[in-house]
Amino acid sequence: MNVLFASTKEKPEFWFPLLQKALPADRFFAWPEVNGGDIDIALVATHPPGTFAALPKIRLIQSMWMGVENIIDDPELPRGVPLARLIDPGMVNAMGETVIAHVLDWHRHLYCYRSFQKTKTWKRRRQYLPSDRTVGLLGLGELGRDVAAKLLALGFNVAGWSRRPKRLDGVHCTTDLSDLLRRSDAVVCLLPLTPETKGILNKNSFGQIPKDGCVINVARGGHLVVPDLLAALDSGHLAHAYLDVFEPEPLAADSPLWEHPGITVTPHIAALNDPRTSLPKIVENIERIRRGEAPLNTVDSAAGY
Amino acid sequence: MNVLFASTKEKPEFWFPLLQKALPADRFFAWPEVNGGDIDIALVATHPPGTFAALPKIRLIQSMWMGVENIIDDPELPRGVPLARLIDPGMVNAMGETVIAHVLDWHRHLYCYRSFQKTKTWKRRRQYLPSDRTVGLLGLGELGRDVAAKLLALGFNVAGWSRRPKRLDGVHCTTDLSDLLRRSDAVVCLLPLTPETKGILNKNSFGQIPKDGCVINVARGGHLVVPDLLAALDSGHLAHAYLDVFEPEPLAADSPLWEHPGITVTPHIAALNDPRTSLPKIVENIERIRRGEAPLNTVDSAAGY
Repeated sequence: MNVLFASTKEKPEFWFPLLQKALPADRFFAWPEVNGGDIDIALVATHPPGTFAALPKIRLIQSMWMGVENIIDDPELPRGVPLARLIDPGMVNAMGETVIAHVLDWHRHLYCYRSFQKTKTWKRRRQYLPSDRTVGLLGLGELGRDVAAKLLALGFNVAGWSRRPKRLDGVHCTTDLSDLLRRSDAVVCLLPLTPETKGILNKNSFGQIPKDGCVINVARGGHLVVPDLLAALDSGHLAHAYLDVFEPEPLAADSPLWEHPGITVTPHIAALNDPRTSLPKIVENIERIRRGEAPLNTVDSAAGY
Repeated sequence: MNVLFASTKEKPEFWFPLLQKALPADRFFAWPEVNGGDIDIALVATHPPGTFAALPKIRLIQSMWMGVENIIDDPELPRGVPLARLIDPGMVNAMGETVIAHVLDWHRHLYCYRSFQKTKTWKRRRQYLPSDRTVGLLGLGELGRDVAAKLLALGFNVAGWSRRPKRLDGVHCTTDLSDLLRRSDAVVCLLPLTPETKGILNKNSFGQIPKDGCVINVARGGHLVVPDLLAALDSGHLAHAYLDVFEPEPLAADSPLWEHPGITVTPHIAALNDPRTSLPKIVENIERIRRGEAPLNTVDSAAGY
């Protein structure tokens, strides 16, 4: 089969040797080389404009990332062609690690002790038990389930919000956003970016989180209303925020987020693609197309995830 | 029974109401009031000099902390009187949380991204899988076992060193310190402070840890040779150090540790005593003495822990 690699973010020189070794019978092309339009499968991650219009014979669009909003937003996205998200167990685990790192940093006041260190201040904050804390997850998909399991193992109370009703052992699952926010000391955004979730981390949401709470956004920058977060931190209502995603990226040099003492900024590293764990998932979907089977982890383009 | 509270660090006004509520039939005294020497049990945590000489009828010395080195070092410590450590499940869990927080901070380069944030630098470091990393624990007692279980659950390789041979499922246990150091990307000190372990974190030890490793000391300041750590960080051999304990405490204002960019300083907060989890353990040992039974978690004063 003919496989196109079309990304403005992922590097073909990194991926091609790995793909060719795993799929020696297939031919790989890097955009803008589209083999005269004879392409069966497109591997995409922030694809260049015009990609899909050049692929009349396409049979699978395989995202190399978990989030697919900029594929769904492309008006040239061909209808009827399966679009698959990348559910990479290494990325899922990395996201769980990141969330646990931030939750513990907040829970044990480590962000606060770092500010004490700057002023050589030897001062202790009250220590809480994990059973004193509830961590609320926005999103209960593959990522939310892994994060919930890791938090439960550490003894935290866990609540989760999703659009469709879900059940997870040991997790207070709700479809009522206010219910989630009011019971959560820390709120973690793991949602897909859709018209319904854009701006969900806003003034109204922050006001419902109990005082001294924390917000962790590892989903997309578009989920957060930046001025509302700054106000909630500056008023002392929220204790700290951990932001990994921004709109646009890289975060602009003049953004107030960089220098705010209540915000930890990371450069969209909560879960990076590791070919050791993701390549087998890409290969599996390519083999499924070859065998005429349905690919895994396809997206419901009406729902947007 | 008559119970003396003798501590220069823990506050009697905090503990007395809790103790009196839990043990309404007993009488509590705060040093220097020793009831004319008629004291059955002493609760101590960095006790004032002369405490033990004033207690001729003492039947149990109950530490309110896990570490007992300054009790054992007291030449007035009465021989033949049981000395008990406090094994508080809340403190054990808190120590596990602290170690996981620091290990993830190092593993996922979060210390590094904080330095990038200061210079508004959008740059990614390579992401490792937890199975790429080995965390080496110095000490496999109650704390080491809890930390090992939490690390294994996150997918890290775990090695452990102890003076006496031990076996733990899934952990590479060794009594050979060089074996532990050479295989560990992160080294966590959880040891009791004894003549044998004093200064164990030294130039020779750091040299055996692979490059870009990390050192976490949550045991006692006396385990660390500070100039050797500074040299190992300044040469670029170690990536980062997390220090919670110092000699003396509070850490002196002129210590170079406060301002070193490769060191995270916390004010001995890795595991604080929470009466909700520790009081039942103190009460249990007092009841055991009342019933004429041997107390739990007594210290082998020859071994020093």
